[in-house]
Amino acid sequence: MKGPAMRSCLELIKPYEPGKPIEEVERELDLTDVIKLASNENPLGPSPAALKAVVEQLPRLHYYPDMHSHRLREALAKKYGLDMDMVIVGNGTDELMTLVALAYLNPGDEAVIAQPTFAEYEFAVRLMGGVPRFVPLAGEEFRYDLHAFAAAVNERTRLVFICSPNNPTGTIVRREELERFLDSLSPAVLVVLDHAYIEYATDPSHPDGIDYIKEGRPLLALRTFSKIYGLAGLRIGYALAPPGVIAALNRVRVPFNVNAAAQAAAVAALADSEHLARSKALAERGRRQLAEGLAQLGLKAVPSEANFCFVDLKRDARPVFEALLRRGVIVRSGHIFGYPSYIRVTCGTEEQNHRFLRALEEVLAG
Amino acid sequence: MKGPAMRSCLELIKPYEPGKPIEEVERELDLTDVIKLASNENPLGPSPAALKAVVEQLPRLHYYPDMHSHRLREALAKKYGLDMDMVIVGNGTDELMTLVALAYLNPGDEAVIAQPTFAEYEFAVRLMGGVPRFVPLAGEEFRYDLHAFAAAVNERTRLVFICSPNNPTGTIVRREELERFLDSLSPAVLVVLDHAYIEYATDPSHPDGIDYIKEGRPLLALRTFSKIYGLAGLRIGYALAPPGVIAALNRVRVPFNVNAAAQAAAVAALADSEHLARSKALAERGRRQLAEGLAQLGLKAVPSEANFCFVDLKRDARPVFEALLRRGVIVRSGHIFGYPSYIRVTCGTEEQNHRFLRALEEVLAG
Repeated sequence: MKGPAMRSCLELIKPYEPGKPIEEVERELDLTDVIKLASNENPLGPSPAALKAVVEQLPRLHYYPDMHSHRLREALAKKYGLDMDMVIVGNGTDELMTLVALAYLNPGDEAVIAQPTFAEYEFAVRLMGGVPRFVPLAGEEFRYDLHAFAAAVNERTRLVFICSPNNPTGTIVRREELERFLDSLSPAVLVVLDHAYIEYATDPSHPDGIDYIKEGRPLLALRTFSKIYGLAGLRIGYALAPPGVIAALNRVRVPFNVNAAAQAAAVAALADSEHLARSKALAERGRRQLAEGLAQLGLKAVPSEANFCFVDLKRDARPVFEALLRRGVIVRSGHIFGYPSYIRVTCGTEEQNHRFLRALEEVLAG
Repeated sequence: MKGPAMRSCLELIKPYEPGKPIEEVERELDLTDVIKLASNENPLGPSPAALKAVVEQLPRLHYYPDMHSHRLREALAKKYGLDMDMVIVGNGTDELMTLVALAYLNPGDEAVIAQPTFAEYEFAVRLMGGVPRFVPLAGEEFRYDLHAFAAAVNERTRLVFICSPNNPTGTIVRREELERFLDSLSPAVLVVLDHAYIEYATDPSHPDGIDYIKEGRPLLALRTFSKIYGLAGLRIGYALAPPGVIAALNRVRVPFNVNAAAQAAAVAALADSEHLARSKALAERGRRQLAEGLAQLGLKAVPSEANFCFVDLKRDARPVFEALLRRGVIVRSGHIFGYPSYIRVTCGTEEQNHRFLRALEEVLAG
């Protein structure tokens, strides 16, 4: 044996399977003009103001970034009416999920997680030797069943992850059911409410974690600049929570976790409400276009409140995913979420959605 | 109590004290034209090719970055004659230090660390409930005493951190003594050799960790784009190690840990050997200029192989640090390293070094 033994709890970590990058598909399949509808990125890109802010950072890139992301936290605190000590910025929300586990999970501590949902909650829990308790989403519409969540909570539970709108299903948790659930919890449990897609939600019963944080509840809301703000490439997300929770996360955070380009871009992106509205409207049109187009192919998308659709192909989705790739359309195969007959497709531009629907029609007919 | 209890080992973590940012000092002290010689940044900035590469990324920033940093790892593997599975890229080397602790440290495991040295080794160890064993650097010249290191190693030791050239002293470990030390170690110990400043070293007896990695020893070499490559603001560093060690670090890494701008900039920076040579020459001249200027003030800098000088003011350095700030010169006070009569000053441009020396002369005379 060379080097120390790896911590034994890490054996249970499964490698992450990302959406395939455009360049990789073009290289491997000798294609051009590949489109990626696989990672729920904003097809409009970021606000032009955000790109301008990156360019303005160029003469300063040899300096370390502000380790406290001061300007961005100030802007976020103002936007939400919170104190600055209730805001933390991360190298994407992925980092923040890891910080939650680092702050709070001792080996054997439990975390309640939906199934299917974003894979990184399980990763964070396994990283610290925690035990995930999976609760299936209910029925064909993949509804959150918070009674089942409550039943999975016990005295070892420290974290509950709720992604709303949920990735990969696009379904949401409702305000009243969430409030009943929060009321039922011991104060020793922290609820992590992942709002990566909240800006796309139009259902008036969708809750906003900020309301509960203002009430002083032990709840952490995650938000990101990777989705509607179109800044996935720069890696920046943030969390809102009571000051004690934010202080614990800061304790386990490396000092210069967020790069200077991302901090500047995020401040500028936050101020561009017009780009936000345009991006939201495009996703709404995309959801309708995809749902209608899929219906014409005899397929039913799960009703989505996000910028993607999860759809049951009623057959092994893997060969369909591969055939779409060969036609230059990257989607996500459901097997990575444990649903091998599904695909998840991001709402693109009208033209990209058309191209996906045409390609899918060909593949299903072939 | 609101929320779960923080992991108890985290109580021992001390907050990081960064070099003060220029904007903060200008704002707080109502100054202009402040210079920062506090964080060992490259006063020339990055290669122009690196900045061009960032601009070329702008149209793609809404896509997630390559989670494997493929192009950069390819370039690094080629540069060092290693396989790609012996290279990992991080969000600064700070992240990579944390990954080492996450991969290998169980509570109570020990790590041997020099004193004084970079604070983040202790942070990473404490994060996982590990126990740091500090070994003082020897004498006025702060020499690494690897006999003392060997004496601090026991059956609980999993990690040994060696920073060479060392931050904040600029002193180095010598090749022969390092090799004797490596020979003495159990294979269950991983040596982390932090080479953040290696490009500045001119002493021919300075070792290069790559040689030991090629021999298959359990050693991990850390290198960064934050220092001589002038990209601190973008956050990017890397580690070289045997494949088994890199695989363990990848297992605890979040998928999209390195932003796309940093990946592209680093690839371009690596190819600009002219900028590297110019930066190295500037730092060498700076070391001489600072050592001579300090000698004229009756002060003796620790002989440095890096782009900074550590100097004993033979008095409380804190008020000197504050007085320099008021003159628009940011350095680092030695109290953060446990040496309250020292300051650490980065080699700047000739003009910046002059300005520091003049300001120090005034302050010491006043």
